[in-house]
Parts: sequence; C-alpha cells; structure tokens
Amino acid sequence: MKNILGRSLPDYIEGYGEVKAFEGAFENMGEVTTATSKVRPGIPGQSKLLNSIEEALDAVNISDGMCISFHHHLRNGDYILNMVMEAVARRGIKNLAIAASSIFPIHRPLVEYIEDGTVTKIYANYMSGPVAEAVSMGKLKYPAIMHTHGGRSRAIESGDLHIDVAFIAAPCSDDYGNINGLYGKSACGALGYAVSDAQYADRVVAITDNVVPYPNSPIEISQSYVDYVVKVESIGNPAGIVSGTTQITKDPIGLKIAKTALDVMISSGLVKEGMSFQTGAGGISLAVAAELREYMKHHEIKGSFASGGITGYIVDMFEEGLFQSLLDVQCFDLKAVESCRVNQRHMTMSASMYGNPHNRGAVVNKLDVVILGATEIDTNFNVNVTTSSDGTIMGGSGGHADTAAGAKLTIIVTKLTKARLPIIKDSLTTVTTPGETIDVIVTERGIAVNPRRTDLIEKLKETNLKVFTIEELKELAESLTGAPKSIEVTDEIVGVVEYRDGTVIDVIKKAL
Amino acid sequence: MKNILGRSLPDYIEGYGEVKAFEGAFENMGEVTTATSKVRPGIPGQSKLLNSIEEALDAVNISDGMCISFHHHLRNGDYILNMVMEAVARRGIKNLAIAASSIFPIHRPLVEYIEDGTVTKIYANYMSGPVAEAVSMGKLKYPAIMHTHGGRSRAIESGDLHIDVAFIAAPCSDDYGNINGLYGKSACGALGYAVSDAQYADRVVAITDNVVPYPNSPIEISQSYVDYVVKVESIGNPAGIVSGTTQITKDPIGLKIAKTALDVMISSGLVKEGMSFQTGAGGISLAVAAELREYMKHHEIKGSFASGGITGYIVDMFEEGLFQSLLDVQCFDLKAVESCRVNQRHMTMSASMYGNPHNRGAVVNKLDVVILGATEIDTNFNVNVTTSSDGTIMGGSGGHADTAAGAKLTIIVTKLTKARLPIIKDSLTTVTTPGETIDVIVTERGIAVNPRRTDLIEKLKETNLKVFTIEELKELAESLTGAPKSIEVTDEIVGVVEYRDGTVIDVIKKAL
Repeated sequence: MKNILGRSLPDYIEGYGEVKAFEGAFENMGEVTTATSKVRPGIPGQSKLLNSIEEALDAVNISDGMCISFHHHLRNGDYILNMVMEAVARRGIKNLAIAASSIFPIHRPLVEYIEDGTVTKIYANYMSGPVAEAVSMGKLKYPAIMHTHGGRSRAIESGDLHIDVAFIAAPCSDDYGNINGLYGKSACGALGYAVSDAQYADRVVAITDNVVPYPNSPIEISQSYVDYVVKVESIGNPAGIVSGTTQITKDPIGLKIAKTALDVMISSGLVKEGMSFQTGAGGISLAVAAELREYMKHHEIKGSFASGGITGYIVDMFEEGLFQSLLDVQCFDLKAVESCRVNQRHMTMSASMYGNPHNRGAVVNKLDVVILGATEIDTNFNVNVTTSSDGTIMGGSGGHADTAAGAKLTIIVTKLTKARLPIIKDSLTTVTTPGETIDVIVTERGIAVNPRRTDLIEKLKETNLKVFTIEELKELAESLTGAPKSIEVTDEIVGVVEYRDGTVIDVIKKAL
Repeated sequence: MKNILGRSLPDYIEGYGEVKAFEGAFENMGEVTTATSKVRPGIPGQSKLLNSIEEALDAVNISDGMCISFHHHLRNGDYILNMVMEAVARRGIKNLAIAASSIFPIHRPLVEYIEDGTVTKIYANYMSGPVAEAVSMGKLKYPAIMHTHGGRSRAIESGDLHIDVAFIAAPCSDDYGNINGLYGKSACGALGYAVSDAQYADRVVAITDNVVPYPNSPIEISQSYVDYVVKVESIGNPAGIVSGTTQITKDPIGLKIAKTALDVMISSGLVKEGMSFQTGAGGISLAVAAELREYMKHHEIKGSFASGGITGYIVDMFEEGLFQSLLDVQCFDLKAVESCRVNQRHMTMSASMYGNPHNRGAVVNKLDVVILGATEIDTNFNVNVTTSSDGTIMGGSGGHADTAAGAKLTIIVTKLTKARLPIIKDSLTTVTTPGETIDVIVTERGIAVNPRRTDLIEKLKETNLKVFTIEELKELAESLTGAPKSIEVTDEIVGVVEYRDGTVIDVIKKAL
C-alpha cells in the first residue's frame, strides 16, 4: 500500500507489526487510552540504594526479550547505555529491545550487541554514528523504529511502546530516587526525555554519580516512580554532555538566510508582543535568533516563551526580558543548565508536555514560530532529516515533526545546495516531516511558500522578498549542481519512520 | 466476617462491592497495575478556554452515574463544588458519585443533592459539617467511602476509583491549563490532592478566577492533563481558604503534653542531625513543634525535612535552618503559601508522592517522627479520628493512617479525657488507623508505649517519664470520668473506612 504521501509501505513488518499508514498530520487525533504499568510498592524501611548495575539487573530480573530504555540528555558523553549493555551482554541476555530517546557515536559498543543478537530491536528519535550506520546496513534483526520526541512519549503513554525497565542517568539523585539534572559533575539540565519512561516503565532504575541528601531539590522526576538508585563512579563525560558555548554561524550565506527568515517572520505578523519562538542549536538557527533579538530589542517587543532544547543564546534573550519564560525539554549548553538552576521561569518540561500529539495539548501547539533545518525537501514541502542522500541514517525527527505540526509558522532554513547536491528534490530518500506542516523554505537564493498558505503568500507579495515556487527553487538548485542521481535501494526495510501520531510516514530501505 | 482487628464486615456492600478485609498494615503490598484513562488529544489552534461551568458540563458530556471529583485545597472557603453541583443538579442529572478529597461545612448544599438523588455516592478522606451529618443519618443512598490521603491517590491510580470528570479549583491558571495555587486572590498554596485526579480522570476541567499569561509559572499541574479552563468570578472565599495564622495552644495541659512528647522523641534517639518530622496544625501538635524548635536550636541540630500540611510555624523552623527542605501537600496558612512561592526548597508534592502505599515509595516512608491526634484509642492502640463517640462522622484519616504507617515513630498526643469522656476505650466507635502503626500515646497523666516497641520501652525506662500500660491509662481515665456507655448502632452501613491499601478496616453504622 501507499500512504497519503505516496510512500510505499508493507501491511505488516516483522518485528514491528501491522502498519498503520500516515493519513495526514491531524487525521489520527481521536480519543486514546493511556497504558498501564506494573508497580512494586515501596515499603517503609526498605532502601532503594544498590551498589552496582549488576545488583540492579538482579533486582529487575533482567531477561531475554525485555525492552529497556535510556534517555539521551548526556548526549555524546553518555556512559549509562554502554555500562548497562555491557553488564547485560555479560549475562548472555538476548533479543533485547533498546528504547533510547537518541543514539550517538559514543554508543558504538551497541554495534557488537546488535551483531551478536543481544539487541534485536531499537527505538530512537535520532541516531547518528556507528549504530546508525550498522542499522542502515541491515545488521539489526528487526527494523529500527524512529519516533519523534513527542511521538516517543505518545508511544510510551499509549502502550505502543511498553518499557520493562527504564535506566535513567541521573546527574543528581537522593537515595529514594528524587532526580534532577541540574547539579553534580555530570549536570545536563532538564531531563524531559526521561519523564514518560519513569511514569510508564514497570521498573525504574536511576543511575547516578551524585547522591545528595534526601530530599533532593528541585525534583524533576519523583521518588514515586523510581524503584532503585545505583551509585556509580561516573555517568558521563562532561565534555560530551554539554557544549561549552553554542555559536552563531559566521558564514555570510548562513547570515543572509537568517536575515531573510526574520523578514518572513515579520511579514507573517507573528513578531509581536507575546510571541513564542523555537529554534535549534545549529549555526543558522542561532543566527535567526540573533536577528530576532535585535529586532525585538529595537522594537521593544516582549515575547511570551521560547521552547525546545535551550541554548545559552536563548537564555540571553530571556534574561534581557525578550521572553517571559523558557520551556525547556533539554539544555544544550552550560549556560542553559545554570539558568535552569536559578531562574524559576526557566521551566523544565517532559517530552510529552513538549510534543505528544495525544495528550490534552502540548507546548508545540502554543508555538508561533519555529525555525528548522532540512537534509532534503521535496516539491510537496515534505522534509527529510532522517537519512543522508546515500540512504544512511544520520539523524531523525527529534522535535522536528512535532514543532512543525504545532507552530503557526514553520520555517525551514537551509542552503540551497549542500556538498554539491541540491536540497530540493522530486522525491525524498526518507520522509520525516509532512509538507502540510511546513510553511516556508528560506534559502540564500530565495524563498518558497507552501501553496496551502495563501494568507502568507499574500502578505509576502507586499515585501521585497524573492518568492519562488518550490519547483523554481528546485530548478535553481539543479542549475548549480545538476540533477541528483536517485539512490538505489533494496527491498530490505531497516527502519520504520513513525509520524508523531503512531502512523507510518515512511520506511527506510537498505541502500544497494 | 471479621477483619484482623476484629471488626465485623459484610462480604459485600451494595454500592461498594466485594469487601477485602484489612489484614495488617503491610500485608497488601504486592505488585499492582496502574489504571488507564481516556484522553481526548488537544489539537493545535483549539482553545481550551470556556466561558462558564455550563459550557464545561456540555463539553464533558456530564451524564447520570458519572463520578466527578474535587480537591479540598480551598477548604471551608471552596466555592467550586457547590457551583458545579448547582449547575449539574439544574440539569436533572442523577446518581452521581462525588469524589471530593475532603468535605467541609461550606458544602452544605450537597445535602439537598443527596436527598434528591442527584448524588448517591461520596468518596472523601475527611468530612465535617452538615454533609457528614447527613451521611451519618443514612441519607446517602450508598455508604460513603472514606479514604486516607495516600489511599485516595492509590484508589485513583489503581482504577479502584475511576473519575469521569475532575473539576480542579485553580487559583492561578493560564489559558492552556498550566496550574498552580500560589498566586491570585484565592491562593491556597500546594495543590497536592488534585494531582492524581488530573493524571487519571478522563476529563479535566480547571476552574479559575485568575487567568495569567501563558505559560504560567511554576507549573504544579501541567497543561498535558487539562482539557478545559473555565474562568469564573471567584473560586473561593479567602477567609475560609487559609487561616491568617496558626496558633500554638496556651492551655497548660496541652503544653505539658507537648513537652512530654518531645521527651519521648528525644529518648527514641531520633532527634538528631538529619531528622525528619511532621505534625498537624492543631494547638498541641504545634506546641510539640515549638518544643522541638527550641531543642534543635539549643543543640544545633539541623533536620532534613518537614512534610505534610505545612503551617507558618514549620516555615519559621525551615527559615531558621532547622529543616533543609519542606515537602508540602497542602498549605495551612498564608505564610506557608508565601514560603512556597519564594523558596525553591519549599517543594510541593502530590498526595501520591506523600502517602500512596502502592507507589514506589512515598514521603511518609522517609519520616522519622509524626505527631498525630485521636478522638478515641483502644487498648490495642487502634485510633479513631473518623467518628465522634456518638457515631457521627466528624473527620476521617486524611494523612493520619499514612504517616502512622510510614514514620519510624508515631506519637499520639491527646488529653486523657475530652468532654468528660475517656479517650482510651475497650472498643472504638470506628477504627481509622491500626494500632500496629501507633507507637506511643502521650497524655497529660502519662504515656503508654505499644508493646510491639520493646526497643522504645527499654529506652524510656532510662528516663523519668511516667510510662503506663495502655490498660492502666484507660483505668486512670475511667477513674476520672466513669466508664463510657457504648453507643447503640443499627445494622445499616453508612460508611466504609478503607485503609490506605484499599482493604476495609471498618464500616460505619448508623447510630440508633
């Protein structure tokens, strides 16, 4: 069968199950039922402290076929996934499903566990590095299942993704499992991606290198949800956990794109008192924030909130009063961690509150403007941020599809060509985010507006901005690079890309 | 049948169901499964704001037989329960179950709805005033079900108590349902009793007199859980919501009891660095806090936390550094509300985190000492705080049974006689809290120690404290008052008293 975007899908995928085809961004929004979980009551006088991961594996009775989960707040500095997997593999456990919110190059040891059958399923919102490459090569027994950040919490909260044991890297925990990510040598800030895991897993193990006196404060994940606390020497490498600073691009092309993106935002009428805004940590995205900052200051505009992964740059805008609050699912740098510690209006949020399409209203629904990137865009405005043009997994939605669906104005900022390949194509290697949720593409050569946004097209006509059709932009790109060759793929499905509502927006096939 | 305390129970109670007999405070602590709830996803662009309670009743499709819930943080100043019930009754809805965390004299209008069949079931952790009297007289069609604070969240989270619609009085909310109780003319502080309702009800309606710009901060109940926000003129009468100040008793007998209670605490060895403590807002309980305060200051002891309903007096101790943190399920006065606003280590907690015996470990489990009151005590140390000696409901456990079960040392402070009746009796009118969780009774004439606590008895032998057997204390009391007449009751069950684990510890029978 084909889904509404014309992507060919099987009816059933081994290791995944029945395929529900994507039908549109808001077509699967009926009443849902939340999942159950099993809870072993905590009895007065019983300690939750364990001395080792080994003890924790005994306590949770780790067994073949279980699904175990991890969060990615320690990013490329995370030691926890590798430590747990090493201990698990040593026991000869097989057929595990790993539900890691994201997978980074540091998780390279997982490749071996994929190859020897310790791990046969992977769920992730983002993957890069050796594990992503191994999956792309078809080494994993079953296809990897790629979620969005909001979609992962939806899957957990609906029971589509049942977690037997959640292992939660905890930069700061007391002996009864009250956790935050704000203090200690492995401080990473908000722990938003771990919250649904804690709430819905049958067993929850906090692993920490920083046990503080009871009760910890603040409490992002409550003792109510934590079975065990394991003290280890180190949960991560600070150098990989947060970058010291985040940098605005200095590339003149990037700066030009950023300036144009601001012009589009202004033309839309959304840059005004009370506006809300999200942008990523990439160089061009931050440059858009810089443009917005100057404009807001000059025009004395005070926004309501900025959201998402939070950078020091956004913290600066917050501290200048340009945003009244920050809603933070993940801190990108040390300045964001520090702000989250000290400022009450710099609030953490769960991934569910951030982007779950099936709760009673996520933060993305309140966004005015989001600035996003793209690896490929097709002429229907569909976007790929999951695979490179050779078919290798090198990312994933993260919050891309969530914010695009929620925001009033979704702008893709990108150079028209990358590595001598055009960004705009007739057909994508993989669809991550549906075009109906993308409003404008901004490149250095000009912009394209989604034809659905006739209101925006009218507004932009009154400006000096170079507005093209997406086909024109595509031709412009191809005139610079030549038409790209489409990659050849096999029939073997190595990944399933779930839209945030749990339908399948695409599958990833092994490249030839 | 009889439960382990010898209380006669039927096997089945109409309107309640099968009776699971209480078997001991920690006998029903096996693995449990959490409940499901139904969620209607919040779609981008849809407003949650409604203009009236009428609109909310339409939106949630209020129907015969539903269970609707309320929290009691506005206490005897609460307008919400009455406002909602008036609108519901006007529609001719019948057979509603009301799950109110507590019911106060202000809820008198409920009596009429009980009489006309609008309401046929009530769940509450505490009841006083006209509704309690009406229930005691057998006016409610089915027996009222009395929970503990922790037991109510257990019941909700297990599905034993399924809430169709939660109406949440919200002193401070934004238009998307992020709620706190800290700001506005109806500020009441922590909203701990409403959290499980929000998490597990099928529909959640916030009712507020204070809509603030999005996003509200801090967020105690998240937009993720709230379907609708209704703006009304006033949600409560500030004079009834929080008392201006809480007062230590000036009665010399009360002060003597308090001094003795401190002596017991000291003798137990628990008054030391890192201690945790809970006491109520009553005059003698506060006097115990005052004694403890002086002792801690004099001996330079720094405690870890105080918990429970928090009073200004406890805030003073916190601000003096006698406790490092407060864990607050409910603010008793304005000073506590103010502290909760400004001090990060004055943390709110849900009723589940506070006392649910079936989560992975509640705060009560970490308590060293709790000071509690009693209406009656029997010679097995069982305590009644639910009914008066004439059989009328005039209270309920609240956190009584939860803290007693959790704390290392549970002390009952009480005068030996009240209103010329002895406190200690052979048999209780109603059992609220099992004797196995009560350690010491402190009266003005002397103390009695639970024989189970041989360790404590040994320690107290080394002091000058007058230690009696509970039988001796009973005789002492009776020598002052004469033996009390036992009340005569009918066979009609008007209330079911659930222990925190969901078993039935007693039933309340209609008095003759």
